[in-house]
Amino acid sequence: MQTQILERMESDVRTYSRSFPVVFTEAKGSRLTAEDGKQYIDFLAGAGTLNYGHNHPKLKQALIDYLASDGIVHGLDMWTKAKRDYLETLEEVILKPRGLEYKVHLPGPTGTNAVEAAIRLARVATGRHNIVSFTNGFHGVTMGALATTGNRKFREATGGIPTQGSAFMPFDGYLGEGIDTLDYFEKLLGDNSSGLDRPAAVIIETVQGEGGINPAGIDWLKRLERICRDQGILLIVDDIQAGCGRTGKFFSFEHAGITPDIVTNSKSLSGFGLPFAHVLMRPELDKWKPGQYNGTFRGFSLAFTTAAAAMRQFWSDDTLERDVQRKGRVVEDRFQKLAAWLTEKGIPASERGRGLMRGLDVGSGGHADKITAEAFENGLVIETSGHDGHVVKCLCPLTISDEDLLEGLDILEASIKKVFG
Amino acid sequence: MQTQILERMESDVRTYSRSFPVVFTEAKGSRLTAEDGKQYIDFLAGAGTLNYGHNHPKLKQALIDYLASDGIVHGLDMWTKAKRDYLETLEEVILKPRGLEYKVHLPGPTGTNAVEAAIRLARVATGRHNIVSFTNGFHGVTMGALATTGNRKFREATGGIPTQGSAFMPFDGYLGEGIDTLDYFEKLLGDNSSGLDRPAAVIIETVQGEGGINPAGIDWLKRLERICRDQGILLIVDDIQAGCGRTGKFFSFEHAGITPDIVTNSKSLSGFGLPFAHVLMRPELDKWKPGQYNGTFRGFSLAFTTAAAAMRQFWSDDTLERDVQRKGRVVEDRFQKLAAWLTEKGIPASERGRGLMRGLDVGSGGHADKITAEAFENGLVIETSGHDGHVVKCLCPLTISDEDLLEGLDILEASIKKVFG
Amino acid sequence: MQTQILERMESDVRTYSRSFPVVFTEAKGSRLTAEDGKQYIDFLAGAGTLNYGHNHPKLKQALIDYLASDGIVHGLDMWTKAKRDYLETLEEVILKPRGLEYKVHLPGPTGTNAVEAAIRLARVATGRHNIVSFTNGFHGVTMGALATTGNRKFREATGGIPTQGSAFMPFDGYLGEGIDTLDYFEKLLGDNSSGLDRPAAVIIETVQGEGGINPAGIDWLKRLERICRDQGILLIVDDIQAGCGRTGKFFSFEHAGITPDIVTNSKSLSGFGLPFAHVLMRPELDKWKPGQYNGTFRGFSLAFTTAAAAMRQFWSDDTLERDVQRKGRVVEDRFQKLAAWLTEKGIPASERGRGLMRGLDVGSGGHADKITAEAFENGLVIETSGHDGHVVKCLCPLTISDEDLLEGLDILEASIKKVFG
Amino acid sequence: MQTQILERMESDVRTYSRSFPVVFTEAKGSRLTAEDGKQYIDFLAGAGTLNYGHNHPKLKQALIDYLASDGIVHGLDMWTKAKRDYLETLEEVILKPRGLEYKVHLPGPTGTNAVEAAIRLARVATGRHNIVSFTNGFHGVTMGALATTGNRKFREATGGIPTQGSAFMPFDGYLGEGIDTLDYFEKLLGDNSSGLDRPAAVIIETVQGEGGINPAGIDWLKRLERICRDQGILLIVDDIQAGCGRTGKFFSFEHAGITPDIVTNSKSLSGFGLPFAHVLMRPELDKWKPGQYNGTFRGFSLAFTTAAAAMRQFWSDDTLERDVQRKGRVVEDRFQKLAAWLTEKGIPASERGRGLMRGLDVGSGGHADKITAEAFENGLVIETSGHDGHVVKCLCPLTISDEDLLEGLDILEASIKKVFG
Repeated sequence: MQTQILERMESDVRTYSRSFPVVFTEAKGSRLTAEDGKQYIDFLAGAGTLNYGHNHPKLKQALIDYLASDGIVHGLDMWTKAKRDYLETLEEVILKPRGLEYKVHLPGPTGTNAVEAAIRLARVATGRHNIVSFTNGFHGVTMGALATTGNRKFREATGGIPTQGSAFMPFDGYLGEGIDTLDYFEKLLGDNSSGLDRPAAVIIETVQGEGGINPAGIDWLKRLERICRDQGILLIVDDIQAGCGRTGKFFSFEHAGITPDIVTNSKSLSGFGLPFAHVLMRPELDKWKPGQYNGTFRGFSLAFTTAAAAMRQFWSDDTLERDVQRKGRVVEDRFQKLAAWLTEKGIPASERGRGLMRGLDVGSGGHADKITAEAFENGLVIETSGHDGHVVKCLCPLTISDEDLLEGLDILEASIKKVFG
Repeated sequence: MQTQILERMESDVRTYSRSFPVVFTEAKGSRLTAEDGKQYIDFLAGAGTLNYGHNHPKLKQALIDYLASDGIVHGLDMWTKAKRDYLETLEEVILKPRGLEYKVHLPGPTGTNAVEAAIRLARVATGRHNIVSFTNGFHGVTMGALATTGNRKFREATGGIPTQGSAFMPFDGYLGEGIDTLDYFEKLLGDNSSGLDRPAAVIIETVQGEGGINPAGIDWLKRLERICRDQGILLIVDDIQAGCGRTGKFFSFEHAGITPDIVTNSKSLSGFGLPFAHVLMRPELDKWKPGQYNGTFRGFSLAFTTAAAAMRQFWSDDTLERDVQRKGRVVEDRFQKLAAWLTEKGIPASERGRGLMRGLDVGSGGHADKITAEAFENGLVIETSGHDGHVVKCLCPLTISDEDLLEGLDILEASIKKVFG
Repeated sequence: MQTQILERMESDVRTYSRSFPVVFTEAKGSRLTAEDGKQYIDFLAGAGTLNYGHNHPKLKQALIDYLASDGIVHGLDMWTKAKRDYLETLEEVILKPRGLEYKVHLPGPTGTNAVEAAIRLARVATGRHNIVSFTNGFHGVTMGALATTGNRKFREATGGIPTQGSAFMPFDGYLGEGIDTLDYFEKLLGDNSSGLDRPAAVIIETVQGEGGINPAGIDWLKRLERICRDQGILLIVDDIQAGCGRTGKFFSFEHAGITPDIVTNSKSLSGFGLPFAHVLMRPELDKWKPGQYNGTFRGFSLAFTTAAAAMRQFWSDDTLERDVQRKGRVVEDRFQKLAAWLTEKGIPASERGRGLMRGLDVGSGGHADKITAEAFENGLVIETSGHDGHVVKCLCPLTISDEDLLEGLDILEASIKKVFG
Repeated sequence: MQTQILERMESDVRTYSRSFPVVFTEAKGSRLTAEDGKQYIDFLAGAGTLNYGHNHPKLKQALIDYLASDGIVHGLDMWTKAKRDYLETLEEVILKPRGLEYKVHLPGPTGTNAVEAAIRLARVATGRHNIVSFTNGFHGVTMGALATTGNRKFREATGGIPTQGSAFMPFDGYLGEGIDTLDYFEKLLGDNSSGLDRPAAVIIETVQGEGGINPAGIDWLKRLERICRDQGILLIVDDIQAGCGRTGKFFSFEHAGITPDIVTNSKSLSGFGLPFAHVLMRPELDKWKPGQYNGTFRGFSLAFTTAAAAMRQFWSDDTLERDVQRKGRVVEDRFQKLAAWLTEKGIPASERGRGLMRGLDVGSGGHADKITAEAFENGLVIETSGHDGHVVKCLCPLTISDEDLLEGLDILEASIKKVFG
C-alpha cells in the first residue's frame, strides 16, 4: 500500500490513520476492505455516522437513481423536490408518530455547524448568552461550539483565545455515587452570587460519545428537563452521535420521555455517510430572520435523498429499534464478562452504554490502546473515547449481522485476552 | 407546485426560496428545471459552487462508478484510496505546475470550517491572536469565522456576544480614488499605540464575493504580501468563492503572482456541489498535533473522487482558463454597456470583477432586487451581493455554453430595460 | 438635612444612602454623627475600610504633620520618602515577623485595580488564562475583576458582554455537610475533558465578605494550597476585606498557615479610609516589565504615610490581635444567642465568621433588611451581605471600645426582638 | 539617598523612578525637592494631576481644617456634607455657567474606573456593545478600559486574552493632510458589511495625552458630535487628562462648543493630587439601578473637600482660563522656536497642543529621552509621550509662576541645545 504521499501531504493533525495505518478502498455493511484485500469488521462505523452500515444497497440505489435523473445536487437553501421529500418524510415517519412538532433549520452539513446554529438561536430567543454544557461533553470545535466542548486538546489549540459564553456543570454521576449533580446545578441557579450567569440553554448528550460513552440516567434527564422548564432555560439535546437509532430509539431522549426545545442531528442523519445536519426547534422558538445564518452547503440534495430513504427504510416500523436493543444486550453482556475478566486480572474495568452505544472502561488510555491495536491486527476496527481514551467503544452499524457482531466481539475478546492474559 | 410543507416546516431563516419561490427538481449544465417544467438559466450556480455546471456527465459518471464499486463513502480521517488519489491529483495537476508546495488539512467539509481551521493554525503558529480581515469580507458564520466577517446581519445575530480576536482594515479602494488603503494598515502596524494588536494573519478574498464582487488590485495584493512578509504576518487567501477557476486561474491569487502562507478552498472544490473544503498551508506552518482539530465529515470520499476527476478534466491544460477569460470579457462588455445605459437613465451604475466573477453595481438593493425579480420571471436565476445587496452578480458556470451565456445576458438586459426603461 | 441636590444630582446607582438616608458630617472612632446631631455606632466601618476607626488621632496627626511639611502628596510611581517609609515599615513590621518575602506592586489605589493587576500577573507568569474563583466570591467590578465576581447584579450590568477567562468552583461548604468541594475541583483538574481550562491561578477570600461572611475551613485552605502547589497553579488570596487584622491576624491566611503566591490588600490598608491598594507577590513571580501596568494614583503619599503609621501603631506587638479575638468572641457569643432566639421564633438563623468579621444569617434579605432598618432608627449603622442580602454582618472597627461594642450589640438585639418579637 | 529598599521591594513594573532616580520629599507649587535638597521645576505635575500645583495653600488649609474637625473621611456612597458641598459647587461653579445639565456617578476614585463605568453605562443605555475609540487613545488599563486603549505595551500584558467590545478609528489627522478621518468612520457606519458593529458610544480625548499631545481639530470635533447625534451613538469625552482647565477651559470640549453625553474626569479633579474621579451623564442616560456598580472608595470626602475648594478658588471667574491661554502661548512660542532649531539641525521637529497641554515632537523616543534626561540633570522634571515616546510634553501646573515657567523652558532649551548642538 502506497502511503508516502498521504504521510507527506496531509497535515500532522490526522489521527485515525495513525491507529489504522492502512489504505481502505471498499466497504459494505459492517466490513471495510483495505488495499491489500484484508477485510476488517467495523465497530467504529464513522464514529457513529454509519448506523445503517456502509453502502446500504437501498440507499445506494436511491442515490444512484437520483444522480441518474440529473436531480439537483446542490441547491443552496432554495426549494427543491428533494428537500420537500425530506421534510415530509421527517414529519410523517419520525416526528408525528412521536408526537413531536418541530421546525427544521438546515445549517451547514456538519455537526458543529448545527450546534453553532442551535446555540445562537437559544441566545437570540432568550436574550441571554450563557450556554450550560457538561463535563466530558463534546459538541464540536468551531469557536462557538468549542465553548461547550470539554476536551482540553481542542480548547488549548485556539492559540490562547479563551472561549466565551458557556459554563460547565458536572454530568450525571460525575461526583460519584449518591450525589445528584443536578443539586449543584439547581443550587447555582438559585444563588444570585454563584457566578453562574442565568443560562440561555443547557446543551447535553443523553449518552456522551467522545466523553466516554456515559449515559445520563433516565430520572436525571427528567429532572434536568424539569429544572429547565421551571427556570425558563432552553433544553438542547445534541443528538448528533446518540441519535438516529444508536441507543435503540430514533431520538436518544425518547428513553427519558423528555421533549427538548432544540435538537441537533447529524452523523447518521443522511444514512449513507454524507455530510448532513439539521436543527429541530419548537416552532415558537424560530426567531430567525431571513438569512441570519447561512452556509453554502445547506441544501445538499443527495443527503436529503438518502436521509428520506433511510427513514422510510428503517423507521417505518419498530423492527430496527427492537433489533438494536437486542444486539445492544449482546454487546452489553459480552462487555460485562470482559470487564469481570479484566477486573480479576487486576485491571478494574466496567461496562456501560445504551442500545448499541456501548463502552468498556479499562481504566487507562494505555490499556485501551493496546487492546484496539491488537484488535486491528486481528481484523477489527474499534476505537477509544473518554478523557484519557480509556474506554473501548462499540459503535458498530445498527444493521450489523449477528455473525459479524459476534465475530467482532470474539476478536475483541481474543485481543483483550492476548494483551492481558 | 406544492410548497406548504416547505413554508410550514423550514425555519424562517430560509432566504433564496424567497427570491425564487419555485420547487426545483432537475439541473444540467447551466440550466435548472422547476417542478412545473419551466427552465431557468443559472447565473448563481450555487453561489459559486458549481463552476463546472450541474451534474457534469464526466464527474457524475466518476461518482456513480465509485458508488457502484462500493468505494468507501465516509472515512473519517483514515487513509483511503480516494483521499490518496485526491492528494496526488492536487499535487500533480494543481500545485506542481504552479510551483506551489503546500500541505493539506482536511477539516469539516464547509468553508467556514476551513476558515476556522486556517485562523486557528495562524494563531497557534504565531502565538498571536489578531486576525486582520477587510471591510465587506465574508468568511463564514461560525463564531471563529464570524469574527472576520463584516456583515452586520450575521454579526448582530449572535445573541449579543461580541466576536473577538479580529480587526477590520479597509479593502482596496474603500477610501476612494487616490488613497492606498494599505498606507493605513502599514501606519497602524508601525504605531505602537494604534490599537491594532500585532496580527497573526491577514485573511483576504482577492475578489470579494458576498461583499459586492470587489476585486483587489494586483499591485495592492503584491504590496499586501510584502507587508505581511516584512512584519512576520501570515497571509491567508480565502479562495472559497474566487478560487477553482472562477477568476480565470485555479487560484485567484495567481493573477497577482503572490504566494499565500495559507489558502482555503471549498465551494467548487468538489466540482459537483458536494460539501468539501481543504486548507493548504506552507509545510513549515503545520504546527498541528494529531487530533487537535476534528470533525466527522473530514474524509468524504465522494468529494475526493469528483474533486480529483474535476482537476483532471478541467485543469490538465489551459483550455478552461482561456475560456473563462474570454467569457469574462463577454460579460464585462455587456455589463459595461448596461451600466452606461443605466447611468444615462439617471441610475449611476458600474461594472467590476475578474474572470467570470462579475458584478453590475446598480447603486441600491432596491434597484437590484427589481432587476433580479424580473429576470427570474423571464427565466434567469441571478442574485445580488454587496452590503446593501446593490450589486447584481454573475457567477454562471465556467462551462456555460456561449448560447446560454448570451441568452442569460439577454434576459438580464431585457429585465433591466423593462424595469428602468 | 438638605438632601434634594443629593437626590437630584447623584446617579440612581447610589445604594447606601438608601439604607441610611441622612447626611453624615463627622466621625470619630466607632461613631458617626449626622447633620442633625444624631450619633450612630458604626458596625459597617466603611465596609471594612476603617479597621482602626474613624479619624484615629495618631494617624490623623501623622497626616496633618505630613501635609504641614509640604510633603509630596501625589508622586506617580516616582521614589518618595513616603513610599520608602511605607515599604520599610511593611517589611519590618509585617512581612519579616511572619517569615514572608514579597515584592510589592502599587497599582491604582482601589481593590479592583489590585485584583486586575494580580490576575494579569498570574496570566503573564504562567502563560495560561484561566482564573478560578469561587461561588459567592467578590473581587471587584472592573471587567477583568468582574470575571471572578459571582454576583449577578454586577455581571448582568455589563450591557450583555460576557466576562471571560474565569471559572467558578464551589466554595468550602457550598455543597453541604460531608462534601469536600475540593474533591470536585481536583476531579476537574485531573480530567482532560472536564471543560476546566488549566488554571493560571485560584483567587480566594479566606472569609468571603460580600458573599455572606463565609469562612473557609482551615484544613480546606491548606488542601487548596497543596492542590495549587501540586498543579503549578498560583494561589492568590484576595485579602482586601478580610486582611489588615479583620480576622484577628494581619493577613487572614495566617490562620491556615498557608503562603499565597500573590496577595491583594486595600480597604483598611491605609488605616485612615484613604484610597490605597497593593499587590504582594513572591519575588520570582515579578514578571512585569517597566510600565506594563500603570495608573495615575499609584503613588498616593498620604496613604503611604497613614499606612506606615498604622502598621507601627497597631502591628508592632500582638495587642490588637488578641483584642480582636477577644471582641470577636463577644460578637460570636451574642450572635449565637440571637440566632438561637430567632430559630425559636421560627426564623432559622445561624452565626458564622472569624475574628471581627461576623455574620448573623437570618435566612432572607427581607428579614435582614427589617433588622438593619430598625437598628438604624435606633442609632446603629449595620449592613447585610450574602447573595440574598440575608446575612447581617458586623464589621465594626477593630479598635471599638467595649462600651460601644456592647451598646451596638444591644441595639441590634433590641431591633431583632422588636421586629420578630 | 537610600534607594536600596525601593529597588529591592518594588515590582519591576515601576517606571518614573527609572527616569528620575532620586527620592523626592517635598513639593510646593511647581517645585519638587529631593532628599538631597536639590530642587526641580515640575513640568510633569503628576501627569496632569496637579493643575493647581503641589500643596496649594488654600486647598491644603481646607484639607487640614476638614481633618481637624473630624469630618468623615471615608463614606462609601452614603450622603455626607462633603459630598453635598461638592455637588453643589460643581453645579453652581462649573455646570450652570456652561449651560450643562449632568447627573454625577461617583465610581472608584481612578480614571480607569470612571472609564469602565462610562463604557458600561453606554452599553446598558443603548443595548449595544461596541465602543469606538481612536488610534493613540489612552483610557486606562483595567480590562474594560484597556479595550479602548491603543498602547500595545499594555494590550500585550494581558497574558494573551484579547480585549473585546471595541473598535479603533483613526484620530484626527492620522491619515495625513487632506484626509478627514471622519469620512472613514462615516463610511463604515453607513456600510452594513464594514465589520464595524453599530457603536454604543464613541470615547475620545479632545487632546490626546499619553498618545502624544494630539489635539483634535475644532471642526472635526463638531462633526464627530453631529455624526454621533445622527446615528444615535453616545459621545463620551474622556477629559481625565485634558479636563480641569488644562486646555484653557474647564472642560476641554468647550473649545468646540460640543456637549458630550457622558464625561469622565479624574486626575486634577480633586485639585490636590488626591485619588478622585466622577462620571457626568445626561440625566436621561442614568439607567443605573441601585448598586449595579460599586467600589469601596467612591465616597472619599477629602477629595470632595479639596475639589470643591479648587472649583471655588479657580473657576469662579475667568482669571485662570485667561492665564492658561497666555502661558500656553508662551510655551507654544518657545516650542515652535525649538522645533525650528531642531529641524535646522536635521532633526525634523514640530510643536502642538492646546492651552498648557503642549508637546514638542522630536521624531523619536531616543531623541526625546536624551532631552528629558539632560533636563532632569539640570533641574527640570519633564516627560515624554506618544507611541514611540517621541514627544516631549509640557504639563506644568496651570498656576506656575512666570518665573518658573521661563526657567523651566530655559532649562529645556539649554538641554536640547546641549544634546543636539
